[in-house]
Amino acid sequence: MEKTEKKEYVTYGNKTACGCGCGAGTEGKGTGITGCRFSLSPMTDNFVDIILGAVKKTHTEKVWQETGKLSTVYRGKQIHVEDAVKACFINAWREGVHMTMEATYSKGCPGDTAGDSFMAEDDELLNEPEIRDVHFPVACKISLYPMGIPNYMEYIAEVVNHAIDLGIYEKSAHYCTVLSCDVQELFDYIHYVNTYCGERLSHYIFEVTFSVNSPTKE
Amino acid sequence: MEKTEKKEYVTYGNKTACGCGCGAGTEGKGTGITGCRFSLSPMTDNFVDIILGAVKKTHTEKVWQETGKLSTVYRGKQIHVEDAVKACFINAWREGVHMTMEATYSKGCPGDTAGDSFMAEDDELLNEPEIRDVHFPVACKISLYPMGIPNYMEYIAEVVNHAIDLGIYEKSAHYCTVLSCDVQELFDYIHYVNTYCGERLSHYIFEVTFSVNSPTKE
Repeated sequence: MEKTEKKEYVTYGNKTACGCGCGAGTEGKGTGITGCRFSLSPMTDNFVDIILGAVKKTHTEKVWQETGKLSTVYRGKQIHVEDAVKACFINAWREGVHMTMEATYSKGCPGDTAGDSFMAEDDELLNEPEIRDVHFPVACKISLYPMGIPNYMEYIAEVVNHAIDLGIYEKSAHYCTVLSCDVQELFDYIHYVNTYCGERLSHYIFEVTFSVNSPTKE
Repeated sequence: MEKTEKKEYVTYGNKTACGCGCGAGTEGKGTGITGCRFSLSPMTDNFVDIILGAVKKTHTEKVWQETGKLSTVYRGKQIHVEDAVKACFINAWREGVHMTMEATYSKGCPGDTAGDSFMAEDDELLNEPEIRDVHFPVACKISLYPMGIPNYMEYIAEVVNHAIDLGIYEKSAHYCTVLSCDVQELFDYIHYVNTYCGERLSHYIFEVTFSVNSPTKE
């Protein structure tokens, strides 16, 4: 590579309106876009059919979506993003098949843009009627990252303590908190966390790794 | 549940020495412990044998480790944690088998303790001699979270631009950056990020999702 070549660098943090990267005054803040990037990993030879079947069965008319080789991202109004991710996970569940799903919920990134999104006008959930009566146990690890503020641990404690109140908390571990509950309870909790953080933080990331039908007992 | 029951709440953020949750003066800061929590997901009926075989083949005498139903965590000196995670991933690779690995590298959590770790006295890597000549392509998404500071986007830009310099950067996407390179280059880059962040940030999380042998072409 020639040393004189002009590289296309990224410029996060020094071209935002506020100059500090905190997101204040930038395009991303205030767009109200919630997003979720997720990957399903069914541990079976039949993984392609399960993933494609789940994606196809999920109603995504109220979110913007993009699928790549590593993951799928849904973006839009919080409740519709949550509804579509929940449906994709439930639609991929198979009795006895171990599967994990890594999901990154986020809102407010200073580098975000108002594009690549679709904000549905109404709040009617497209998938919930089909999935609200499905029940199976899920083990899960969560990590919350409130960005740009010194007192971020307080927000983490708040959402962990809410899990304790709900009775879905299993334990604290290095770098995450472990939850264990029914799939419906878990997605209700995720809705609580996204609502709590979306209202109070300018930028947060909420990482959730779901696991079903693990052969490992603890 | 009786309302009079005393719940065991967590107290992050309001019992640290500095009172703001930033980590200054707490036990976790300064312990120098780097950790990595990771999960292998080979998408084949044979996943148990692959995971257990990889874990067994990996030399972990220089890290502290704990395996649960959701993931495994290694903690200790940065280079030994990196060496063991790299070995576990390479040892789990099978020709033609699609596999992902979600890995959370981190250092400096204010809620961290000096326990659950093992700091080897020397820098001799136990696994590297056995894996340094193994080559295969990896697709990967990364997300860096520098905690507790307003100018966190600058650090993210720095590590992304370094990937651009190395020629392993594929594209920026919502909530992550996509890399594509040889497995050796990728772990060299991870070492750079952990070193860069470990020296400059009091607390960071570096999320990496690896993917090999994906049937999806882009």
